[in-house]
Amino acid sequence: MTLARFHFLNRVTFGAGAAETLPGELAAADIRRPLLVSDAGLVATGLVDRLRDSIAGPTCLFDAVPPNPTEAAVLAARALYLAEGCDGIVAIGGGSPLDFAKAVALLATHPLPLERYAALHGGTPRIGPCAPVIAVPTTAGTGSEVGRGALITLASGPKLVFASPQLLPVVALCDPALTVSLPPLLTAATGMDALSHCIESYLSPLYNPAVDAIVLDGARRAWGAIRTATAEPGNLGARTDMMMASIEGGLGFQKGLGAVHALSHPLGALQSLSLHHGSCNAAILPAVLRFNAPAAAGRIAELHRALGLPAGTGLAEAVARLNADLGLPLSLRDMGVTAAMIPGLTQGALADHSRPTNPRPLGDADILALYSELVA
Amino acid sequence: MTLARFHFLNRVTFGAGAAETLPGELAAADIRRPLLVSDAGLVATGLVDRLRDSIAGPTCLFDAVPPNPTEAAVLAARALYLAEGCDGIVAIGGGSPLDFAKAVALLATHPLPLERYAALHGGTPRIGPCAPVIAVPTTAGTGSEVGRGALITLASGPKLVFASPQLLPVVALCDPALTVSLPPLLTAATGMDALSHCIESYLSPLYNPAVDAIVLDGARRAWGAIRTATAEPGNLGARTDMMMASIEGGLGFQKGLGAVHALSHPLGALQSLSLHHGSCNAAILPAVLRFNAPAAAGRIAELHRALGLPAGTGLAEAVARLNADLGLPLSLRDMGVTAAMIPGLTQGALADHSRPTNPRPLGDADILALYSELVA
Repeated sequence: MTLARFHFLNRVTFGAGAAETLPGELAAADIRRPLLVSDAGLVATGLVDRLRDSIAGPTCLFDAVPPNPTEAAVLAARALYLAEGCDGIVAIGGGSPLDFAKAVALLATHPLPLERYAALHGGTPRIGPCAPVIAVPTTAGTGSEVGRGALITLASGPKLVFASPQLLPVVALCDPALTVSLPPLLTAATGMDALSHCIESYLSPLYNPAVDAIVLDGARRAWGAIRTATAEPGNLGARTDMMMASIEGGLGFQKGLGAVHALSHPLGALQSLSLHHGSCNAAILPAVLRFNAPAAAGRIAELHRALGLPAGTGLAEAVARLNADLGLPLSLRDMGVTAAMIPGLTQGALADHSRPTNPRPLGDADILALYSELVA
Repeated sequence: MTLARFHFLNRVTFGAGAAETLPGELAAADIRRPLLVSDAGLVATGLVDRLRDSIAGPTCLFDAVPPNPTEAAVLAARALYLAEGCDGIVAIGGGSPLDFAKAVALLATHPLPLERYAALHGGTPRIGPCAPVIAVPTTAGTGSEVGRGALITLASGPKLVFASPQLLPVVALCDPALTVSLPPLLTAATGMDALSHCIESYLSPLYNPAVDAIVLDGARRAWGAIRTATAEPGNLGARTDMMMASIEGGLGFQKGLGAVHALSHPLGALQSLSLHHGSCNAAILPAVLRFNAPAAAGRIAELHRALGLPAGTGLAEAVARLNADLGLPLSLRDMGVTAAMIPGLTQGALADHSRPTNPRPLGDADILALYSELVA
């Protein structure tokens, strides 16, 4: 017998002004000494200080989350958390600070090493109660605010997923007003991340009609708003749709992703390039849609219909045009990836947790061919 | 600022054969001496014994859940639970055993009286950890398997809702194969319950696009399968769609229901008639759709489109025809409700928790008019 298993997630407060509820949420979670985690770019905008000032009690700040979170940075933040006697974490930023906070929350209450808890090493059952995390996303893309997973690049090299309901933020404060200051290119790249989550989870072969309905709505919503959000940063309606699409994509994770993410994760582990996850996904998506077409024609047609694409325009072609309109890099070559990197990337993609839910079986020759196309 | 709040729910195992995972789920939840709760009709079919026989250790059975669960029955089951030293509950049946089990689980770990925990009396924060409940639905309609609420008729008269995340079943084993023995009229009535959940939560004015997407899919799914499931009880495809629609409707509860349920709950509290909740909803739905039309024209048009209704057929009219096709009572008069009962029913509907999320304000004159139309 084949059984489907599903599970929905954590509490969300959504809307312009949601971030203002942070002090109340800290009190509700009984967090008296939070560690704020964010990145230098966001601190420079003043947003982190503004949120920090809204908190009455003592706070600490770790402001050095790397673009792709690393084990070394997690250990540094953990040391600060323990030294300062913190009792919870506020994650402010995009997917990197959110994932990062989850890993710090894990190691704040569990013995080292981090690798022991990786899903790939059967670590999920070893994850017990973690420090509470409040997620305050400042991009609309990651979905990590409603997700159970965190991707961390280990000191030993690979970018691995850590996944457990224990890692869910206790609450996500999803405030579209925080995203109006996001620069156009980052709006586009993070938005394409959300769109790729919706499309990939929709194409996953697992049975979960509730997720299918959510991510189809998310894909439609992101498709309809991403150009406007990029071109008119202050358009709160478009920002609201993008933030909802991010959540909807995150609710899709439980159905599994596919080849886009299997190919994208190893790229994020390349320390030499520091590639943006959303930009990688955007560049990879058209090629993967062409690859998946024979195995997922019906679902791709449903997406085509939901996005309101004209007859005669393929979904892959429309995504490629969207990337171009948004000013995103169109290939991995444009992002600095070279043919010499492909063997290592292929090993990473083969081991990736997103590979098994791609609608078309994805072997090493397929991965090699896709990477080769994208660096050509 | 207006903020939307949402939250998804518990773990589900879905598919033909899901009920066979019960022993493993009992072990996973560390339940060594479960109280099984069900109703006499279901026990007579042999299903309860079959499930009971699959459990290796000691079990107890409470087989007298009333069609609309009462406080007196809850207290009787609680006494059995405590006397037998039970450590968890398996609820087998439709919405009544499922809601009933939640109330027993509450009182197994909390002091009396039950009324103290009613949402209407601000009781939700008083609900702490409850005994674990495993839900095994045998109808496709209630949604209680994935819901935080339980409706219980108190000894003092009113039918009140008890609502807390603590009341969520630890897991719902949703096995469409259990529903193939459900008689046609019960299939139809419980199916209309699921459909009414999907339609009412879709029409609720709260902001929750993820729920909107889910329940629109649920409405489409129920609409497409209910005639087949009723006419061909052994059609597992139709049974599967109905069970998924039940879950999808239950996931919609957090967005709130509306006038159908506000009018239906007091009918369930009428001890003299013992009315079926789904049949009440079915009979009420067309009148409420007409009442709501001025306030929810856009959303009703979306439903019309999602259900694939022909142009020129109104949704209310199509629901009335569906009721007739299914052999369900078309009015409350046909079910024994009289004009003399209306004043009491109106008081109940005014106080009901579903009233505030009806898309059109629902005052006492409106309620009176709707009940009057339905008993005429």
